[in-house]
Parts: sequence; C-alpha cells; structure tokens
Amino acid sequence: MIGYPTKKNPSSKAIKQTTSKRGMSLEEDLNMTNQYYRAMDRAVIHKKPTPVQVVSVDYPMRSKARITEAYYRTPSTTDYNGVYRGRAIDFEAKDNQLKSNFPLSKIHSHQLAHLQQVAKHGAIAFVIVRFTTLDESYLIFIDQLMGFIQSHTRKSIPYAWFSEFAHRIDSGYTPPLDYLKVLDICCFKGEM
Amino acid sequence: MIGYPTKKNPSSKAIKQTTSKRGMSLEEDLNMTNQYYRAMDRAVIHKKPTPVQVVSVDYPMRSKARITEAYYRTPSTTDYNGVYRGRAIDFEAKDNQLKSNFPLSKIHSHQLAHLQQVAKHGAIAFVIVRFTTLDESYLIFIDQLMGFIQSHTRKSIPYAWFSEFAHRIDSGYTPPLDYLKVLDICCFKGEM
Repeated sequence: MIGYPTKKNPSSKAIKQTTSKRGMSLEEDLNMTNQYYRAMDRAVIHKKPTPVQVVSVDYPMRSKARITEAYYRTPSTTDYNGVYRGRAIDFEAKDNQLKSNFPLSKIHSHQLAHLQQVAKHGAIAFVIVRFTTLDESYLIFIDQLMGFIQSHTRKSIPYAWFSEFAHRIDSGYTPPLDYLKVLDICCFKGEM
Repeated sequence: MIGYPTKKNPSSKAIKQTTSKRGMSLEEDLNMTNQYYRAMDRAVIHKKPTPVQVVSVDYPMRSKARITEAYYRTPSTTDYNGVYRGRAIDFEAKDNQLKSNFPLSKIHSHQLAHLQQVAKHGAIAFVIVRFTTLDESYLIFIDQLMGFIQSHTRKSIPYAWFSEFAHRIDSGYTPPLDYLKVLDICCFKGEM
C-alpha cells in the first residue's frame, strides 16, 4: 500500500489507546511537564495510578502475576500530587471538548471535597481545565471554584468566566504546560 | 447451616484477598489510621493505588470496562502521601517477619531516591517498619535511614538500631498506629 502524504499515522493512535481514554493529550502534557520539573529539580509531582479492583490473578510463572479480571474504580482522590517549595500540591486535570463552557459534572463531588480538605490542611489545591478545541489551559484554585459553585445555580462554568477569573497557563515545549509559574505568582508572590 | 458462635466470618477473609498480598496487617492498620485522621480532620493522607499495566480490556456492557489482561508494575514512588499541618507527608511502609534485623533490600532504591527528593523539597519523608513477630512499629526519617546506609556496609539494619535510634509508634485501637504523634514531637516540637 502506498503511503500517501496525507495518510494518518496509525502508530500514534495505537499508543494512545493503551492508556486512559479521558483527557489524553492534557495527561501527556502534564506527565511531560512533571518529568521536566523533576529533571530540573524544581518540584516532585506525580500522577497517581488509576485505581483498579483486581478480581482474579493467575500465576503462569512464579515471578509474574497475571491479572485476568479487574475493573476500574472511581478514584477517591485527585490525579496529581506532590511537593513544591515546601508546600503540598494537589490537583485534578480535565479536558473539555466544548468551546463555550465547562460542565461541572466533569469533576466528581468527592474530588471537590478532597481538594477542599487538603487546602484546609495547607496544600495548594486546584483544577486544571483545558479547552481542547481552543488549545487554552486554565488553573483554578479550589476556593475560586467553590466560590463559583456556591454563587451560581448553573451546572457549567462559561468560557468567559475562565478568561476573566482563572489563570491561563502558558503552553510551550519545555515544559509543555508550565503551571508552577502560576503558583509562583499567586502563592509565592513572585519570590524565587 | 447453624452459625456456631466460634465460626469464622468468611466475608472478612474474602475482602482481604482482593487486595495486595504484601504487608497486609500493617497496610490495614495504616488504612484505618488514615481514615481516622481524615474523620477527625487531623490530616489528609491516602494510600496510592497499586500501579497496574493494563494490556487488554473488554466492554461486555457499555457502562463497565472489564480488564482481561494486566500486570502489576513496580511503583516509582512510595505508597502513602498527603498533607498534615501545612506540610507534605510522604512515606513507605514495610512489614518485616525477621526478629533480629530489617533487610534493606525490602526498600527499592528508587523509593529511597524519591523520599530524599521530596524531603529536599520540603516534605516530611520517612519509612515505617513493623517487626511483625514482635508487634513493634518504628518510624525512621529518610535522613536517618540514609545516614545508616552511608555509614555501614551491611545490607540490613539490626533490631537494636531501631530500638535505639528509630521512633517507636504507639499502637492502639483508635487509631491503630498513631504515627502523627511522632511527627508532632519530632517535626513540630510538640506545639499544637
């Protein structure tokens, strides 16, 4: 078969399908960003593994357990956490295909509760929302998010609210999504 | 079938078998302790899910993905983390069946590297070791542990070292393993 110049590359799609379906490119960007932060010794922030309920396991070899039945569980916490400049960091990241608003149903209520709880104990807690079609990413602190939820009855946050109140995250190559820059400005008053 | 008073409850065993085989009772104690800390609003500390490499997934129902082939991965970080009194908390917990020493091979080198890295960035980083047969649990800060490793050629830490230099953790009912008490004394100088 002739590889026409416009042919889609099937291998990149194949790699994507092996991981979670949700928020793929945002997840990749954050993983690369966190890897960069660790390599530069700026922060230690990791993605938590996706929780899996294992039902049955085979032992074809003594050395290697093979899970033959398991189910994804709803995470009780957020996806990312770690430490930066002496502070605990905790956040959730959400891709959003819509252009005009971000549906609040994308964030589980127990994740909101978790973010409020860690913030109360001194962590820097936030949500990163990417408007995929616009290629714009925003950081919203949990206090801001709860403020919106408590003062509005609507079930989604309009795009205009993000561009006015949330913190736009610069995207680039190294790192792809420099969210610590937002924290430097908002939580550490720009001091280095 | 008559339920004799001495009959063992099969359901509790069934629950145990669904989770990791390693360090079961210490893990249970820590999970209960962390649950207690959260319920009392003292700290937010969770066990991270065991990382699993998913190879294939079936979709018998649209709503429920069924993992049909997966393997346990070596964790790149530690098992527990969270936030307490404004500080990031990060630790690994290890059961030990031996009475006279704790083999250092039980802690992966990348876990030691991770604990040193988070401590450098301001987290309180430590290892909890339980001598199962003696029912004694100890907390060792990463600096202490690295100090031992760097000044000794032996591949295990003698029990006597623990009883002299490590911090014994009180065991009880609520919570089963009050390790925050050690942090209150060692990291917060007893101030409340």
